[in-house]
Amino acid sequence: MVGSLDQQLSRAALEATSLRRVRGRAGQDGALHAEDLLVVEEPLEIRLEFDDGPRGQVRRSVAVTMRTPGHDRELAIGFLVTEGILSSPSQIVEVVGCGPEQLPHGGQNIVRVKLRPGFVPDLKRTERNFYATSSCGICGKASLDAVMAGGVEPLPLGDWRLSRDFIFQLPSLMREHQPIFAATGANHGAVLVSPSGDVLRSFEDVGRHNAVDKVIGAEFLAGPNCQLRAHHSILVVSGRAGFELVQKALVAKIPAMVAIGAPSSLSVRLARRFGMTLIGFVREGKFNIYAGEDRLHDL
Amino acid sequence: MVGSLDQQLSRAALEATSLRRVRGRAGQDGALHAEDLLVVEEPLEIRLEFDDGPRGQVRRSVAVTMRTPGHDRELAIGFLVTEGILSSPSQIVEVVGCGPEQLPHGGQNIVRVKLRPGFVPDLKRTERNFYATSSCGICGKASLDAVMAGGVEPLPLGDWRLSRDFIFQLPSLMREHQPIFAATGANHGAVLVSPSGDVLRSFEDVGRHNAVDKVIGAEFLAGPNCQLRAHHSILVVSGRAGFELVQKALVAKIPAMVAIGAPSSLSVRLARRFGMTLIGFVREGKFNIYAGEDRLHDL
Repeated sequence: MVGSLDQQLSRAALEATSLRRVRGRAGQDGALHAEDLLVVEEPLEIRLEFDDGPRGQVRRSVAVTMRTPGHDRELAIGFLVTEGILSSPSQIVEVVGCGPEQLPHGGQNIVRVKLRPGFVPDLKRTERNFYATSSCGICGKASLDAVMAGGVEPLPLGDWRLSRDFIFQLPSLMREHQPIFAATGANHGAVLVSPSGDVLRSFEDVGRHNAVDKVIGAEFLAGPNCQLRAHHSILVVSGRAGFELVQKALVAKIPAMVAIGAPSSLSVRLARRFGMTLIGFVREGKFNIYAGEDRLHDL
Repeated sequence: MVGSLDQQLSRAALEATSLRRVRGRAGQDGALHAEDLLVVEEPLEIRLEFDDGPRGQVRRSVAVTMRTPGHDRELAIGFLVTEGILSSPSQIVEVVGCGPEQLPHGGQNIVRVKLRPGFVPDLKRTERNFYATSSCGICGKASLDAVMAGGVEPLPLGDWRLSRDFIFQLPSLMREHQPIFAATGANHGAVLVSPSGDVLRSFEDVGRHNAVDKVIGAEFLAGPNCQLRAHHSILVVSGRAGFELVQKALVAKIPAMVAIGAPSSLSVRLARRFGMTLIGFVREGKFNIYAGEDRLHDL
């Protein structure tokens, strides 16, 4: 079953291309015509449909994101959750792909999310100037305040702890779950892991925020038990940990993020403010802890 | 002069942090408290100010982007150019930082761009659903059509050619121009190089699109001669070449992009459609050509 899902994903996510492979100097080696695989990048439009009382049925396009096709429903829901528009699966009536079949292997580029009658979402939050609304102007602090104002609360420490060895094995575990990256060298990955090392979710996407949205959307759609287990899980990301990724994890109440790459100044401040464990530059045998070291037991 | 600019950039772009460096297993090695540098990530708001005839003076926030402080004017202008809002330096009266001094080393998080009286920008283009406006719905093809509809024309082949050796030296040239990356391991870089190998512009940013916007904005602000030389230059980017980056280069009429990382399906289609040379996975001694091989003379 997993194999067939993987194949389905790969068909939609990969595209063959012709190219010239240049190796060595002119005269030494050829510049061979070859075929290789590219990661597919296509726009996805996320539409909301809801009943706005006196104004009647509203259909609103809330975002267009460039993404790798596959798990579009999860991506759309993860986006709506991490933007603070959805907070409970019961707010959703239906999540369906719509529009013409426009992808090379079938599939659509629009996801329509129909909301429960009586639930009117707050769409101001998706506006571009979200971070500019704080009274103190726009700055890193205002961005942190905006996250707080969005209802995100400091994360409890919880009663489980991680070991160094647990962290050390995450890069190889990540690689095992990046078949598109293995084929193209081009994709970002996000993997949700339990404290006992079970891989709960794993997605890849040409956009790193999309890979994280897919993880969070999948847990959200799977119901309360999965939302709850995310509160006791570790999110591993293949690249860098910028503000946006840490913010998304916080909204989903994921208490620990491990990045193969570097964090930014603002992501470290965000993690510290909300009690998240933030680890970067993880390699076999070493890593850096930037925030929340209390969740490791053998320092 | 260049040294002092570099220092100025570094002060604003780097922030010291405490961290724990974990090396080896518990018992083997310590988990040392240490200090290291993070790349600064702070929001920048881009505001337009223009005279809308009967409606009078309009002030509009068009975007908030998470960026590394430094060269904010260039970033704002590059964004406005590559979004199709500005097409000539004569449309600009003034580009100034404004708002409270909120950065750790001084500096502001708002750039206000005042436009020439009589010039009313088309702001529909900055809306999120830009790619959804095509009549055929939303898809890769529609995204390419939208670029075409934005007034971007196929690039002429030009009368200069590149060699393999020229391409081979670009990764090391890129590294030399990434001081923030060298200090933090965290930044994206974009470098504009002439066909004779001169570095014309070089910027780093926590956002890869920002680094490219800074390059394009700097050339635009420097006047017609620099805009013209960009039409005969090569843009080198430190990461992957997605649709957005290729689109920005196309709008600035830069005829060749060389990426250290991989291109996506849509960026290859975009480059081929508009006659851009697109090279990926460049290393010492090898690279792949995905589009526009006619600009290389020794294949």
